[in-house]
Amino acid sequence: MTVLNDAARAVVTGTGLAHLVTLNEDGSPQVTVVWVGLEGDELVTAHLGAYRKVQNVARDPRVALSIETGETDPHGLNPYLVVHGTARIQEGGAAELLDRLATTYLGEGRSMAPPDPPPGYVLRITPTRVSGVGPWR
Amino acid sequence: MTVLNDAARAVVTGTGLAHLVTLNEDGSPQVTVVWVGLEGDELVTAHLGAYRKVQNVARDPRVALSIETGETDPHGLNPYLVVHGTARIQEGGAAELLDRLATTYLGEGRSMAPPDPPPGYVLRITPTRVSGVGPWR
Repeated sequence: MTVLNDAARAVVTGTGLAHLVTLNEDGSPQVTVVWVGLEGDELVTAHLGAYRKVQNVARDPRVALSIETGETDPHGLNPYLVVHGTARIQEGGAAELLDRLATTYLGEGRSMAPPDPPPGYVLRITPTRVSGVGPWR
Repeated sequence: MTVLNDAARAVVTGTGLAHLVTLNEDGSPQVTVVWVGLEGDELVTAHLGAYRKVQNVARDPRVALSIETGETDPHGLNPYLVVHGTARIQEGGAAELLDRLATTYLGEGRSMAPPDPPPGYVLRITPTRVSGVGPWR
């Protein structure tokens, strides 16, 4: 089953920032705002270090991502996409993904990875459920 | 101790949408995007029904809220505020708060509550920790 329809995929591959929620060891929510992309049916985020969100995913793979569309409906409300899913950690490839996402978020010809970057980590998120407000429910 | 400094308070009282994270019964994260305001040192959100987020808070009061600033720093990155906190449920007052927040999010003279609104619920969030990227850490 494809969880993300075309409208949802357009949001994920657009320029909206992703609010990424992971779960701390005590079960409380941890939030960071990150760039996100799509590879096949997986959402992907890049992390140069083993930050808390990467450690969290290693312990509990349940994550959620929310993205504003930047649009406003006739009532003045703002459609947004929420993707619930399961994340796995890929070692390496963070710099390459950061540079690919930089062309989306910053513009063609832009990059983001530092010189001599560490291999880092890529979070690969398999969507299990979609919510929010928009044509993806 | 005041958890929110003036810069953080400015974000909370501004027009940025709040990505509100609560915890489902199975511990997984639930996200909705909502309007948020500030009353004293508490963040407040309005809910006309006993939606899942309200039910979640009744079971586990731990929440997190993230808000984009809409700004871009010289590196092309976007400052954002994350507030971790503990929520309590106030019964009633949702319509009044929605209409007050409508003047912030939609503009002076605007309202949002429907005619003959139900009393609803207000989530009152006491900040315990601030994170994100910006002058509030």
